Amino acid sequence: MADAYPATLPEPPYYAVVFTSLRTEGDNGYAETATKIEKLAAEQPGYLGIDSARAPSGFGITVAYFRDEASIAAWKQQPDHAEAQQHGRDHWYRSYALHVAKVERAYRFDR
Amino acid sequence: MADAYPATLPEPPYYAVVFTSLRTEGDNGYAETATKIEKLAAEQPGYLGIDSARAPSGFGITVAYFRDEASIAAWKQQPDHAEAQQHGRDHWYRSYALHVAKVERAYRFDR
Repeated sequence: MADAYPATLPEPPYYAVVFTSLRTEGDNGYAETATKIEKLAAEQPGYLGIDSARAPSGFGITVAYFRDEASIAAWKQQPDHAEAQQHGRDHWYRSYALHVAKVERAYRFDR
Repeated sequence: MADAYPATLPEPPYYAVVFTSLRTEGDNGYAETATKIEKLAAEQPGYLGIDSARAPSGFGITVAYFRDEASIAAWKQQPDHAEAQQHGRDHWYRSYALHVAKVERAYRFDR
């Protein structure tokens, strides 16, 4: 789940897409689309998991994990996702940064 | 700044340390230590920037960017940071995951 425990993932290597964003004021259809896009992402070949947190300030970070770069490239071009990206630039985000990074090592702690 | 716009960073490659965590209930000294540790991180050789967002649910993501793996290893062992890590396992976190990833490409959008 995006907003519960950190995602359960296989052993590295795999890829992390780190999307850091500052929202505009108001919802403007954002929540509905975000839910839809997150569900679509989970159906993509190579999708491994997602973690997401947004502060009340409107600043948020989403990290989507994929098996490889080809999976990321295919997801970027998925039509509903491409439309959401454009809508994001037009309406939802004041600013965002995207980092594509190869995960070399990972560990987790559970109480 | 950790909770404003996405951090301004140089051209890749560099490293991202993605720390995803679920907090325990109550502050228990967390906020004060987090502020201190974030200031210390910014003084470390190889530190490039930080982004951080925590949802009201207690689920948060912090991404710290460093020039190379040696900078990350040195920061992990910095004494105040090591003490905070132990305190985190003992008191502040129900669960966390840490990913060390090499940023291969990045872009940003500003309205």
